[in-house]
Amino acid sequence: MNHRYSVILGNLGNTKDRFCGGYKDNPPTLEMLQRAAQIPDVTGIELVGTWDIRPDNAAAMKKALGDHGLECVSIIPDLFADRIFGNGSFSSPDEKVRRHSLDYSRQMCDIARELGCNLLNLWPGQDGYDYLLTADYDTARGHLAEGIATLASENPDLRFALEYKPKEPRCFSYIARMADTLLLCNETGQENVGVCIDTGHAYVAGESVGEAIVLAKRAGNKLFHMHFNDNHGSWDDDMIVGTIHSTTYIETLYWLARTGYSGWLSMDQYPYREEAALAIGESVQWLRAYEKIVDENHEEIDALLKTGLAVETSRFLRQVLMQ
Amino acid sequence: MNHRYSVILGNLGNTKDRFCGGYKDNPPTLEMLQRAAQIPDVTGIELVGTWDIRPDNAAAMKKALGDHGLECVSIIPDLFADRIFGNGSFSSPDEKVRRHSLDYSRQMCDIARELGCNLLNLWPGQDGYDYLLTADYDTARGHLAEGIATLASENPDLRFALEYKPKEPRCFSYIARMADTLLLCNETGQENVGVCIDTGHAYVAGESVGEAIVLAKRAGNKLFHMHFNDNHGSWDDDMIVGTIHSTTYIETLYWLARTGYSGWLSMDQYPYREEAALAIGESVQWLRAYEKIVDENHEEIDALLKTGLAVETSRFLRQVLMQ
Amino acid sequence: MNHRYSVILGNLGNTKDRFCGGYKDNPPTLEMLQRAAQIPDVTGIELVGTWDIRPDNAAAMKKALGDHGLECVSIIPDLFADRIFGNGSFSSPDEKVRRHSLDYSRQMCDIARELGCNLLNLWPGQDGYDYLLTADYDTARGHLAEGIATLASENPDLRFALEYKPKEPRCFSYIARMADTLLLCNETGQENVGVCIDTGHAYVAGESVGEAIVLAKRAGNKLFHMHFNDNHGSWDDDMIVGTIHSTTYIETLYWLARTGYSGWLSMDQYPYREEAALAIGESVQWLRAYEKIVDENHEEIDALLKTGLAVETSRFLRQVLMQ
Amino acid sequence: MNHRYSVILGNLGNTKDRFCGGYKDNPPTLEMLQRAAQIPDVTGIELVGTWDIRPDNAAAMKKALGDHGLECVSIIPDLFADRIFGNGSFSSPDEKVRRHSLDYSRQMCDIARELGCNLLNLWPGQDGYDYLLTADYDTARGHLAEGIATLASENPDLRFALEYKPKEPRCFSYIARMADTLLLCNETGQENVGVCIDTGHAYVAGESVGEAIVLAKRAGNKLFHMHFNDNHGSWDDDMIVGTIHSTTYIETLYWLARTGYSGWLSMDQYPYREEAALAIGESVQWLRAYEKIVDENHEEIDALLKTGLAVETSRFLRQVLMQ
Repeated sequence: MNHRYSVILGNLGNTKDRFCGGYKDNPPTLEMLQRAAQIPDVTGIELVGTWDIRPDNAAAMKKALGDHGLECVSIIPDLFADRIFGNGSFSSPDEKVRRHSLDYSRQMCDIARELGCNLLNLWPGQDGYDYLLTADYDTARGHLAEGIATLASENPDLRFALEYKPKEPRCFSYIARMADTLLLCNETGQENVGVCIDTGHAYVAGESVGEAIVLAKRAGNKLFHMHFNDNHGSWDDDMIVGTIHSTTYIETLYWLARTGYSGWLSMDQYPYREEAALAIGESVQWLRAYEKIVDENHEEIDALLKTGLAVETSRFLRQVLMQ
Repeated sequence: MNHRYSVILGNLGNTKDRFCGGYKDNPPTLEMLQRAAQIPDVTGIELVGTWDIRPDNAAAMKKALGDHGLECVSIIPDLFADRIFGNGSFSSPDEKVRRHSLDYSRQMCDIARELGCNLLNLWPGQDGYDYLLTADYDTARGHLAEGIATLASENPDLRFALEYKPKEPRCFSYIARMADTLLLCNETGQENVGVCIDTGHAYVAGESVGEAIVLAKRAGNKLFHMHFNDNHGSWDDDMIVGTIHSTTYIETLYWLARTGYSGWLSMDQYPYREEAALAIGESVQWLRAYEKIVDENHEEIDALLKTGLAVETSRFLRQVLMQ
Repeated sequence: MNHRYSVILGNLGNTKDRFCGGYKDNPPTLEMLQRAAQIPDVTGIELVGTWDIRPDNAAAMKKALGDHGLECVSIIPDLFADRIFGNGSFSSPDEKVRRHSLDYSRQMCDIARELGCNLLNLWPGQDGYDYLLTADYDTARGHLAEGIATLASENPDLRFALEYKPKEPRCFSYIARMADTLLLCNETGQENVGVCIDTGHAYVAGESVGEAIVLAKRAGNKLFHMHFNDNHGSWDDDMIVGTIHSTTYIETLYWLARTGYSGWLSMDQYPYREEAALAIGESVQWLRAYEKIVDENHEEIDALLKTGLAVETSRFLRQVLMQ
Repeated sequence: MNHRYSVILGNLGNTKDRFCGGYKDNPPTLEMLQRAAQIPDVTGIELVGTWDIRPDNAAAMKKALGDHGLECVSIIPDLFADRIFGNGSFSSPDEKVRRHSLDYSRQMCDIARELGCNLLNLWPGQDGYDYLLTADYDTARGHLAEGIATLASENPDLRFALEYKPKEPRCFSYIARMADTLLLCNETGQENVGVCIDTGHAYVAGESVGEAIVLAKRAGNKLFHMHFNDNHGSWDDDMIVGTIHSTTYIETLYWLARTGYSGWLSMDQYPYREEAALAIGESVQWLRAYEKIVDENHEEIDALLKTGLAVETSRFLRQVLMQ
């Protein structure tokens, strides 16, 4: 299918957790860019707002991307690390914070245009709640839909991918799984609002990624973006693709092909203790190998889904994985 | 709020699991009905198709219900225990099985009318999949929506509540959580298709029941029915309400009140090793106590949700639960 | 390593769950035996007490096994399906039930000897609890240790493998994970009491099987038996090996080799909707392929564990799985 | 029972996660101490090594504790936040790191003595692994046991409580649950090595805290310390006690009483977005209320455990919680 591969720039420097302030030193932004550019088969970059990209460095970043032959795949506004959004961004009970979310995101839209990028990946990670009986879900969801609708309607030339995740940093996120994200997309009434699947978030959510892709397709081609990583199932461990799960990646790539997904495959990892570029590069190579399996066996997979026999599927998987 | 309480008749006899064929003897149907009638505060009954109710015993059942002063709250067609549905009912790849699902459900609609009941609770428990790469999710969801749409459009005087559950008996259910069930409701295009929340299914799905209620409200008053039980979080243990969770029931009853839910509160348990009527009766009394807390503190809860301070919510909960 | 492969006879007929009484017809015992004998590379059989083997059919079973060239790998006393053990077997609060557990297990020991089998696999699935504040854990664990100690001391020529599982049929099992089972082994004070790992039980328990094997080794060569299957992580789905997990089987077989495990690799599945012999046969062939990987790369894996670099491990896995 | 309540000092300042560097400003150490001293019913403090207590400030801390009338309950060496321990402390494959773990912990022992404290709470949070096939479990566990044994044998006047946790910051911890921690205690061969239960860690581990207490008792009075918090079951959310679970705290306090636990009840929370002293204070008041229930109903609970009837337990819980 000839997928294009990208990486979130900050992943080259994600090395802290809530206990340890940094397992390694964090390289400067442009050095991270250089390292990313050297990962085989990576041709695109996602930039996190404020961390990587601001009005003051947009021009320099544009040049640096060009120098490395890299495309800006998306801008990810920082709605999750800035303390001001600690109790939510677009859904905040505080009108000032909601307005700031909008203003800040508008600024990020302008930067996206400047960089020739047409996708904003929105991860409103702080929009949710921790304790039961502390949030008015109805009002909050109304605010969330309204803010995103305003942003999307003002920027019809851009696309907005909502990235869902069931929990962390909040105990419960408002945008938690594919289906509720699609309901929110509908509620905004904007064509240019869709969804980003992070495979690890989907595993924690108990979803099959393949089925989530189908839900997005049936809701009107709403899959705008893909983030890839792996985990042990109960938490967003943000690990190297393929080191834990296997079958699910084959199914995912099959359904991406079958539904005509034409976006990027972007790596989103936290290589706390690993050499970051190598760890991300591993994910790309796993995906390329899985992509090859799907390409060479698309019709056989079609047939397996029609027969629906687990024994046949098992035999197929053994054949492609073990021989 | 003066909720009405009901019970699924079969719960008086649910005593087997996949290992043990029966921890107790199963009483005859009419004896179960008699026991159910004696549970304090229970005035309604849900009947499982084929198990409890068939064309041949509908008249006798109607009389028995009347004799006990019980209302028929819903009919639950058996789409999950009959071997014919082992690979799915409305979503089955087999056209004959899909047709049979429809014919059988039509028959249950007629019985509902005969019993003066206007609700069918549909739990398509076999509609899903176990192994990845064995199901065509797109085709299956299409069939599922189509079958339910046909049934609902043919029976505009009845309401159809879709009961979701993330897994069991299949590893993945097509109707898994509130949001995807609402997407399916939309897809049917029928006003009389809505949702049944089973609290235990929601816990396993990682949902807050209060938030699920809000999602249904925002989708257009789509909460048609409620099943109650408790569990330890990872599986549908079908236990006595309140023996594990507490806060969540208070929140649930608050949101039912605030969204104007006027349906039944129905008990759905598997008291494998307990005296069934007593175990179900416990759930009703827990809920009545929680209902009282919500009734007496509705405005205080309103205020807690506005302030959004966990410490205040904790103080409130301590006060109502511990003093 | 040349592992020997076996199957639990009842797996050829496990087709019911708590909803459906049987997805397929259950073949007669001797027909199941015939089918098992035809699974490639299977040379051993485990028999469940009462279901498959009783005093009245032991001689006939012995002959049938011989005719098929099959070895009896273990006897699994039915401590979990008989209603009498519904509230526990060896740990039951009822002295009569505890005595019956012992008497029945003694009978199974005699049968084992008659069949030339030296292993009893004990799965006390009903020994546990559902509701908090309903069990005296201290007394119950005392009874459990005492019963097993008595049985083991009376039968020093046999070995007893305790199979742990975190839940189902009880919400909490007393024998839940490797480490607590080893504590119980110690408490019995009997050399011939050890552990059976069921890989699926371990996944649900959140264990790495490789690490569990090491715990057993360090506790004094306490790994007596292995059951194999796969699942989605949250429940004992009892599925075909390798259809979900991959890395973990490689690690498992590596540690079995490194710790000198010489027992059987036994398949334990519930192929509800699959042709049972084929589904079980798939598991055997996955394991043989993984065994080959481990055999051919034992030293390389040794080196990977020493370097401890995830990127290197990923590269190795890609190489053996994808090329 | 008259339990004594304490708090981990750093909890007054725990406000960052892996995304946000701080939801609030972190108060200086002595201001945190002042705030802790004002939490009603708190009379003890746990100090984290390096963060709160070092050779250079031990004397000043001792004076400050005395001025506030606070007792030093334990020292928690920082084996988890210092980058040097990023791949493990006592179990590190690097001999220098293992030696440093020991030297640093020895220093903490000296400080404990200086503060009149006889307990070290060891949480070796980095001792574990993330990826399968990257760790030699056997060697690592040997190192871990050896290091702790050395430390404990050199400091026979102190007690060492090992705090277990199934995951985070590593995907798998070597000290993961009660039973494996007891096996490690045994392996050290030191009387003064025992266990600390963190209730939230136990929930994530799938344990009943009551049963874990019993395991520790049966292993020879090995419960040395208790940390309290609450969570939603799948992650160490470190929340206010009682806001999610209820029954389990009653059972926990019952078993603490029945097994004669005489240690502290210490609060361990991450009040990211709450006023910390108030949030911690809430936990203490919940526990005091639960303690009162257990004190007043100890014999009734004894009787409930003997009868083993869930309906009776439910009735009891309703009575104490709802009336």
